[in-house]
Amino acid sequence: MTVLPAVLDQHLSQLLGGGWRTDEAALQAHAQDNSWRHALPQAVAMPAERSQVQALVRACREHGVPLVARGTGTGTTGAAVPSAGGIVLSFARMNRILALRPQDRCAVVEPGVLNGDLQHALSPHGLFWPPDPSSAEICSIGGNLATNAGGPRAVKYGTSRDNVLGLVAVTGTGELIECGGPWTKDATGYDLTHLLVGSEGTLALIVEATLKLAPRPRAQAGLRVLYRDADCAAAAVSRVMAQPVTPAMLEFMDARSLELLRLNGAQVPQAGAMLLVEADGDDDTLPYALNALASAAEGEGLLELDVATDGSARDRLWAARRALSPALRSIAPGKINEDVVVPVSRIPELVAGVQTLSAEFTLPIVTFGHAGNGNLHVNILYHPEDPDENARAHAALPRVFELTLGLGGTLSGEHGIGLSKRDFMDRAFNPATLATMRAIKAALDPDGILNPGKVLPPG
Amino acid sequence: MTVLPAVLDQHLSQLLGGGWRTDEAALQAHAQDNSWRHALPQAVAMPAERSQVQALVRACREHGVPLVARGTGTGTTGAAVPSAGGIVLSFARMNRILALRPQDRCAVVEPGVLNGDLQHALSPHGLFWPPDPSSAEICSIGGNLATNAGGPRAVKYGTSRDNVLGLVAVTGTGELIECGGPWTKDATGYDLTHLLVGSEGTLALIVEATLKLAPRPRAQAGLRVLYRDADCAAAAVSRVMAQPVTPAMLEFMDARSLELLRLNGAQVPQAGAMLLVEADGDDDTLPYALNALASAAEGEGLLELDVATDGSARDRLWAARRALSPALRSIAPGKINEDVVVPVSRIPELVAGVQTLSAEFTLPIVTFGHAGNGNLHVNILYHPEDPDENARAHAALPRVFELTLGLGGTLSGEHGIGLSKRDFMDRAFNPATLATMRAIKAALDPDGILNPGKVLPPG
Repeated sequence: MTVLPAVLDQHLSQLLGGGWRTDEAALQAHAQDNSWRHALPQAVAMPAERSQVQALVRACREHGVPLVARGTGTGTTGAAVPSAGGIVLSFARMNRILALRPQDRCAVVEPGVLNGDLQHALSPHGLFWPPDPSSAEICSIGGNLATNAGGPRAVKYGTSRDNVLGLVAVTGTGELIECGGPWTKDATGYDLTHLLVGSEGTLALIVEATLKLAPRPRAQAGLRVLYRDADCAAAAVSRVMAQPVTPAMLEFMDARSLELLRLNGAQVPQAGAMLLVEADGDDDTLPYALNALASAAEGEGLLELDVATDGSARDRLWAARRALSPALRSIAPGKINEDVVVPVSRIPELVAGVQTLSAEFTLPIVTFGHAGNGNLHVNILYHPEDPDENARAHAALPRVFELTLGLGGTLSGEHGIGLSKRDFMDRAFNPATLATMRAIKAALDPDGILNPGKVLPPG
Repeated sequence: MTVLPAVLDQHLSQLLGGGWRTDEAALQAHAQDNSWRHALPQAVAMPAERSQVQALVRACREHGVPLVARGTGTGTTGAAVPSAGGIVLSFARMNRILALRPQDRCAVVEPGVLNGDLQHALSPHGLFWPPDPSSAEICSIGGNLATNAGGPRAVKYGTSRDNVLGLVAVTGTGELIECGGPWTKDATGYDLTHLLVGSEGTLALIVEATLKLAPRPRAQAGLRVLYRDADCAAAAVSRVMAQPVTPAMLEFMDARSLELLRLNGAQVPQAGAMLLVEADGDDDTLPYALNALASAAEGEGLLELDVATDGSARDRLWAARRALSPALRSIAPGKINEDVVVPVSRIPELVAGVQTLSAEFTLPIVTFGHAGNGNLHVNILYHPEDPDENARAHAALPRVFELTLGLGGTLSGEHGIGLSKRDFMDRAFNPATLATMRAIKAALDPDGILNPGKVLPPG
């Protein structure tokens, strides 16, 4: 491993004091994310304020050293892994909630604030920030924004990109840019805010975000709906999404998912597919919303529809969904979990196509996820220590992307690209579009020091 | 006026046939927009398909000739006016609805489709496209996207930017880029889609858009609420926006607006400010929604609250709002209509500050608009033929922007920047942010041929 120039080490040590770490423990703690890719950084920088971020970027640029921004490392694509070496910039110390502005339905935060901590702080005001990745309690808002994190609530409330009003960020030249602000309507210049969301720390480093908040619904209720097959369930998804009551969640599970739940002791009847639908609102109107959703869910191939209105019945219903990811490990220790997106009407073809691939590669593939957005998790299960299974699993993956793109979909709905899908980008975009993305990268980070090698395939 | 190079004229005439116009009538018809700024182009190009747009861009680039995209010219900022000469590209012939996909809640259109025509086509499917500028029947979707047009419904449904899923566009080098698509969740690469929306034809020319549709509500009802003063009305706006039922419209009128309506014969009681609130939904739940909105509207300074549930009562209620813009002409023939945005909690200070400016410049200034978004129309009224009034009106304008920016707001919520606000951009953004916008412009349009001189002030 190369070492940092001594003059840079000394300069950053002076700049950051205790926020400059080169000890083995710190390097190891910042070497991987939830993709389990691993690469040691040469140092870890933990700035406490934006001026330190600017100085850090300028110093890295001067010395041509990569700078990899990191939230809490819950990402699944290797985006926060310092695969080209250099310095990991952890935002753990920039974790202040700068302002709660309930009258303006927004909050101003530093990137290191945990999603869950913000939700707790907002609760007394009757507000929440909609993005709800499954790691909400432990993931940072900076990371949510960098990856455009979503979650099941996105079907009604949108993803991180849809729930940010303004950003302050440091570009690859160390300049501080400010875009958007505490307002919800903006036709003033180029939309840098949405451009930075989902750019995985490759364009600029977010040091402050003004987040759009939503009023916390006062009541929830759920439906569990079983169908003969995935086609019938997908048709129901289209019907649900075409009527005026948008569900707060609309989750799909294929036949394999249901089998798996039964294997793990859950009480799930035999069916070809299942939808879990949640309505939210207030006590007065919730019954009507639930009724509208149930009416839309009814149709060809319906086997059973159960309503869960009270808390414990809802908990049971969603427990099945939550149990699914851990249950996957009971089949095989290895899992390639993709988050492809297709138009809602193409869900049946995606599910059928995945089962064809499962047969072809003789590997279990389990499909479930956020059907209202056409965003399904395709889980290829395998034994990593078996070289043949390992090879088959990794050979099946490009075929999943090929299937998805052939159905008019795209690679990622909420995890992002990072390293793991980077080399499929040229299948998702034509050369001119990729060239435009590269030109934008060069415009914001002319020396390519911000998270090099992520998102865009080598040119 | 310079003339086009003969070889370019000949080339484009061959390329476009009847879609290439250099006659005086065509030039005059494409010389201004609704800002009443005027500049003759050297030619008008009306391509019928995207390959012609690409060829046109390449030819203009080769000859260094400006290319100014135009919808139907309803814009108010001069963005579509060929102030640097060159060719106006009218999308009038690219006006096909390419696909209605109700199952995927999206429509695919060419940029020349009129907003109103799309709404009529969607109506049988129970869907609509939310952006509703007051010119909806006659403005084009390409223009809506180019300016990030909004309207009163944006408080619930968002602006054009919030209602587009994907774009196909031609950059300043004639390359065809494709971003987004018929899905609602996307973490795949840089978000070019939202970047192009609101860029006023300066980055790339939109040749196809995939639009996000919403289910058409089955029922509407309205509230007219009168308050003692603007402070009380603005506090009510904050209360309305902080509870779970988001209104479909939430319009504010100041005391001057109400005076003006009375002067023009409308039956509006004496009050310091008025809110018009609309709820939408279905017959079952609308009464609850209306009740929630009315409860939130109640509070200090409330003078009168009227409910309009049936069609004719609602029509009377909204007729007052619609009458306002034409009524402005009854005071003075000249109007500078800005669309500034402030955080909702700062509306009272904006309204009070505007009245201070009105006194200082001895000109009537009328303020009304989309309060739920903090997006207010500030109308400076004057007699253009009176040199002194004219000078005062144009001296008051920068002070309105100064006031807005001082309240933590921004220049434009829905009209865009064009020429009319371009020279205030350096007050709204710091130099680094403007430099970043310029770098993005250079990345997509390296020779600066796309709508030069718009949005960004001279560097």
